[in-house]
Amino acid sequence: MSSSAIQDRTPQADCTIGLVGLGLIGGCLALDLKRLGYTVYGVARRRATVTAALEQGIVAQAGCDLALLSQAAVVFVCTPMAVIVPTVGQLAEHVSESTIVTDVGSVKGEIVAAATTLWPNFVGGHPMAGKAESGLAAAEVGLFYQRPYVVTPVEATRSTAVEQVVEIATQLGSYVHTTTPDIHDRAVAAISHLPVMVSASLLHACLSETDTQVRTLAQQLASSGFCDTSRVGGGNPELGTMMAQYNRPALLQALKHYRGQLDSVIEQIEAERWNDLEEKLAIAQQERPKYL
Amino acid sequence: MSSSAIQDRTPQADCTIGLVGLGLIGGCLALDLKRLGYTVYGVARRRATVTAALEQGIVAQAGCDLALLSQAAVVFVCTPMAVIVPTVGQLAEHVSESTIVTDVGSVKGEIVAAATTLWPNFVGGHPMAGKAESGLAAAEVGLFYQRPYVVTPVEATRSTAVEQVVEIATQLGSYVHTTTPDIHDRAVAAISHLPVMVSASLLHACLSETDTQVRTLAQQLASSGFCDTSRVGGGNPELGTMMAQYNRPALLQALKHYRGQLDSVIEQIEAERWNDLEEKLAIAQQERPKYL
Repeated sequence: MSSSAIQDRTPQADCTIGLVGLGLIGGCLALDLKRLGYTVYGVARRRATVTAALEQGIVAQAGCDLALLSQAAVVFVCTPMAVIVPTVGQLAEHVSESTIVTDVGSVKGEIVAAATTLWPNFVGGHPMAGKAESGLAAAEVGLFYQRPYVVTPVEATRSTAVEQVVEIATQLGSYVHTTTPDIHDRAVAAISHLPVMVSASLLHACLSETDTQVRTLAQQLASSGFCDTSRVGGGNPELGTMMAQYNRPALLQALKHYRGQLDSVIEQIEAERWNDLEEKLAIAQQERPKYL
Repeated sequence: MSSSAIQDRTPQADCTIGLVGLGLIGGCLALDLKRLGYTVYGVARRRATVTAALEQGIVAQAGCDLALLSQAAVVFVCTPMAVIVPTVGQLAEHVSESTIVTDVGSVKGEIVAAATTLWPNFVGGHPMAGKAESGLAAAEVGLFYQRPYVVTPVEATRSTAVEQVVEIATQLGSYVHTTTPDIHDRAVAAISHLPVMVSASLLHACLSETDTQVRTLAQQLASSGFCDTSRVGGGNPELGTMMAQYNRPALLQALKHYRGQLDSVIEQIEAERWNDLEEKLAIAQQERPKYL
C-alpha cells in the first residue's frame, strides 16, 4: 500500500482525538489521524511506550494518565479486549459529556452493552485490519485503507456520535459497514473465528492418527492444500482463545452449524450417496466466490 | 521451474516406455521421459489426442490400440481412476511377461489389489503433482520435479519391478517414497481428502446461516483467513467426489478423527475451559510447521 493513500491535511481546528493504548492499532491510528490533520493525544500503560510515541512524533502529547484526554472530542480505546470496558469506566471520570468514546475490539456484543451503560456517548467499532507483528514499533501508515471498518450502534447510541465515528473511518479510507453488535458478532464468528477452530481441528485430526508411519508420510506429502487449510489454525493460541471467550455464543452457534454440515458429508460418504456429495461440493464451489 | 531440470540424455537402449492415457499426467510423463532418452509410445482413447501427440513429437509412436505397447518394458497407466484396473486387464493380453505395469492413480488400496491379481508385475504409483488445467495441451516439462512420488508395492510385488519404477521416478527428479497402499491412502486422506471435506463444510456452515443480513455482512468482511481455509473446499466437485469414492474407508476414518477433535473444541468452549482450548491451539501451532 502506498503511504500516499492517507494524504497530509490541514489541521482540523479544535478536534483533538485521544487514543488509549498505543500498540499496533493505536499506533496506526495515531499515524493516520495526524496525517489527516487531527491533534492526537495518546495514553499508554507503560512509560516506555509514551516515550517512544513522543520520540517518533506520532502524538502531540502523551502520558500514562487518562486525565490527559479531558479535552478530546473523540477517544479511541485501543487496549486489549479485556480492558476496554474498565477503560471506558475510567475515562468517564475525565472526559466531558460531549466526548465520543469508541473502541476497536473485534467482538462487539458484550462490550457495547457494558460500555454504553458506562458512557451513553459510546459507539462500538471494529477496524478489520492487522498484521503479524504487534506493538507500536510495527505501526505503519494506511493499515485501515481499503479494509472493512464495522460501526455497531445500538438503539440508545446518539446518531451524531455514530456519524462522527463513520466520518473518521471514512477518512482513514476504510469501507464502513454500520450494523448491530449481534449481526457483527455472528458474521465474524462465521468468517473469522469458526475458521480458526475448523483449521486447528484439522491439525489435531492428523495428530490423532496413532500410526507413526502414516503421520510421518502425511507430513512429507502435505502440500499447498493442507498448508492453506491449516494456516489460521496454526496461529496465535492466545488470540484464538480470546476470540472464543468474547464471542462464545455466536461461535458456538457457528460451530453447531458447521458440525451439522460435516455430519451430512460423513453420512453421504457412509451411505455412498455420491450424487448428493457431488452436489454439495458443487454448491461450495459456487458459494466461495461470494466471499472473495 | 526451469525446463533444464530434466536434462536431455542419450537414448536408453532397448527401453521403450508405454503410456496409456495422454492427458495432463501422461503428456507430462511423455515430455520428461523423452528428454531422459527413453523411446515413448502412447495410446489414447481419442484419435484427436493421438494425432496431437504425434504432431507435437512428444511420442515416437501413438495409436488407439494397446497392441502398440507389446514391446514396452514399462507401461504407465495414466487413465482416469475408474479405468485403471480394466486397462491393466486389457494390457495383460498384449504385453510380455516381463513388462512392468504401473499406474498414477491418487488412491492405491483397491487399485493395487485388483491390478496385482490381473498382472503380477504391477507396481502401484502416485506422482503427487498437478496443475489447474487438464489435458495434453497443458502438459509441460518437469511437472514431477521436486514433487513426491509414492510407490506402493505389496508383498507379491517383484523387487526388480519396484526398483525399475523407483529409478524412473528418481530420474524425473521426484522425491520417492516407498510404502504400503494402506499407509499411502491413510496419509493422503489426512492431508488431501480430509481438508476438502473440512473446507467445503465451512462454506456450507456459512450458507446455513439463515439471517441474510449476517450472511451478506460475512461475505463483505471475509478476508485472507476465510479465503485460505475455504480454498480446497471450493475446488472441482467431481474430483472431490471421486477421492471420497476411491478412498472411502480411510477418508471416513480421518473424518471421524476430525469430528472427535471438533467435538472436543466445542465442549471446551461450552464449558469455558479456556486453558484447555489455549493448550489445544498451542499444540496446533506447534504441529503445523511439520507439514510445511
